[in-house]
Amino acid sequence: MAATVITGIGELTTNDGPALADAALVLDGDRVAWVGTASAAPPADLRVDVEGRAVLPGWVDSHTHLVFAGDRTAEFAARMAGAPYTAGGIAVTVEATRAASDGQLAEVLGRHVREAVAQGTTCLETKTGYGLTVADEVRSARIAAGVVDEVTFLGAHLVPAGTTAEDYVELVRGEMLEGVAPYVRWADVFCETGAFDEDASRAVLTAAAARGLGLRVHGNQLGPGPGVRLAVELGAASVDHCTHLTAADVDALAGSDTVATLLPACDLSTRQPLPEARRLLDAGATVALASNCNPGSSYTSSMAFCVATAVLQLRMSVEEAVRAATWGGARALRREHEVGVLRVGARADVHVLDAPSVTHLAYRPGVPLTHAVWRRGERVR
Amino acid sequence: MAATVITGIGELTTNDGPALADAALVLDGDRVAWVGTASAAPPADLRVDVEGRAVLPGWVDSHTHLVFAGDRTAEFAARMAGAPYTAGGIAVTVEATRAASDGQLAEVLGRHVREAVAQGTTCLETKTGYGLTVADEVRSARIAAGVVDEVTFLGAHLVPAGTTAEDYVELVRGEMLEGVAPYVRWADVFCETGAFDEDASRAVLTAAAARGLGLRVHGNQLGPGPGVRLAVELGAASVDHCTHLTAADVDALAGSDTVATLLPACDLSTRQPLPEARRLLDAGATVALASNCNPGSSYTSSMAFCVATAVLQLRMSVEEAVRAATWGGARALRREHEVGVLRVGARADVHVLDAPSVTHLAYRPGVPLTHAVWRRGERVR
Ligand SMILES: [Zn+2]
Ligand SMILES: [Zn+2]
Repeated sequence: MAATVITGIGELTTNDGPALADAALVLDGDRVAWVGTASAAPPADLRVDVEGRAVLPGWVDSHTHLVFAGDRTAEFAARMAGAPYTAGGIAVTVEATRAASDGQLAEVLGRHVREAVAQGTTCLETKTGYGLTVADEVRSARIAAGVVDEVTFLGAHLVPAGTTAEDYVELVRGEMLEGVAPYVRWADVFCETGAFDEDASRAVLTAAAARGLGLRVHGNQLGPGPGVRLAVELGAASVDHCTHLTAADVDALAGSDTVATLLPACDLSTRQPLPEARRLLDAGATVALASNCNPGSSYTSSMAFCVATAVLQLRMSVEEAVRAATWGGARALRREHEVGVLRVGARADVHVLDAPSVTHLAYRPGVPLTHAVWRRGERVR
Repeated sequence: MAATVITGIGELTTNDGPALADAALVLDGDRVAWVGTASAAPPADLRVDVEGRAVLPGWVDSHTHLVFAGDRTAEFAARMAGAPYTAGGIAVTVEATRAASDGQLAEVLGRHVREAVAQGTTCLETKTGYGLTVADEVRSARIAAGVVDEVTFLGAHLVPAGTTAEDYVELVRGEMLEGVAPYVRWADVFCETGAFDEDASRAVLTAAAARGLGLRVHGNQLGPGPGVRLAVELGAASVDHCTHLTAADVDALAGSDTVATLLPACDLSTRQPLPEARRLLDAGATVALASNCNPGSSYTSSMAFCVATAVLQLRMSVEEAVRAATWGGARALRREHEVGVLRVGARADVHVLDAPSVTHLAYRPGVPLTHAVWRRGERVR
């Protein structure tokens, strides 16, 4: 792969120091080879002038559920007409996912990943969790492993019909965990009323940690609960949703290495309150923003929408929101040294906006602002 | 222009009866020539298969301010950091607009119109109001008249520095109105604390009506006020913003032909409360959605963002929101027989979504869903 110099950058967000004006960036192979002032840029094989546009690291979307089949448009429409959101809708996707062929699942996953990449997402996590049998969870993990950057085992998404919670937890932490382990780096649990309680969540997470997986938790989405506390106690990399937090939850997050991953598009789509990002940030917690792209509770792949919502409604500053959707997501995946950052040696994941500054992401909500994208050094848009 | 048949429509929203499944549409010249079931479609010169996608009338954006120059990104960023929104920022754009050449103004306007059209907007209103001298207002009206569908005279946007409100109102309703009249169909007034009070607003609007112009009002944006009442009293086609309404305002709108045009992107961008669409709809008022695209209070051209916000946060149904952003905007411009509707004889303004139903506009917020656009029968995307 030839080296490319990107020149004419009006504003360069690196997440490795203050934003630079009149900057240039050299990509060599799949890595960033040079960052600095345009006039000092070394020569390269290929030169791309972005004519004053803003450049930032590609989005790191650290929370999606893209191994699925089936359609839940009608459920969304019913919710907008007043029906409440419950975890139960997941079962609809489970049924369709089990019935789909490998090829169908790979097609849906690939299509959504391409859609995300076209909007500037260059590092993507996705989860299993619509299989819920050993064979179906292993299949989901295997299919995802060939496509996305990070795969998370979410066998503990819902207790499937026809089994008890106790029996299912034993299956998840035993045979199912063993089966998916070759394909996944992370384990996650939906710690929520109607899904897995504190004891069940702990049983799954401790088994996964013993098997060498990193931990993530879905917590405090639909009401207050033990998710955040448990995530911090077990040293999870991230606890996601954080819509309903007590003061003790905020303090626990602020005093930990666990990232609070906010999913505001999901809260809008389920008519939940919006998460209190300012409480978390002001307390010193690390915040990430992610899409939670899935057909039930949050069917958007637009990280720009999440950033705009974070600024306009969660009262994050533009800089905080952009950092949370790049570096924050990387930190939530424990990859902040390699992605979500533009420094020498980092992955060449670059997002060029059709705007002179990242402020336009919130100033111009909904306007498609992705001008160009490089992923692992390859121009993909 | 050859006739085109659009086939394979998964869901056709016409605003002229219920949505149709498995439909087709024939465009001939700049008009719709046929609408119906795909199997009964007549032959045409050109056939475009949209493969199950949803088709709807192009957006009718009935409220924008696109004859401007200058940059207010820093003001937006300051507001997001806590500074309040006031009408005063308009003066910054006025200064830059006066200093710009005709060519510069036309370039900015054309660029924003192209951006809107690429997102499915096929009928666009824009306003003067950043000139505020006779020469500058006439120039703005003239430049806009060559480019957009509807032009509104908004000399009464702000009292410029160096004059009194009384003197300025006389200028607006006299010499300025006379100068712009050949280029505009509408007159508007910013009826708000810090801009024009009830008497001044009435003086401008009655003079404009006497000159044969239709009326529009900016009202009840930053607090309760006389705008809605005045608009209804004078038979304005639309009163725009409607963020702060009394029960009497809602009743007045419900009992009138004045459209309540909601601008939720503006409310988000100025940290105002969101308008109470349900109160208006449930009372029987006609509601439109528009972008208010302008560099100060609402710098988005995305009608899809407005529709998504209306569903997710104003609790409009998808059908209500889509209708408000098409038929409602047309009604607010008194063009509902020709635009915002797909029936034989209507303007061939067609929006094809990258989705099987309009529900996806709210289900997938932020995802660019515009697949194809015809404007006046011409494929523009
Ligand atoms: Zn999730
Ligand atoms: Zn306006």
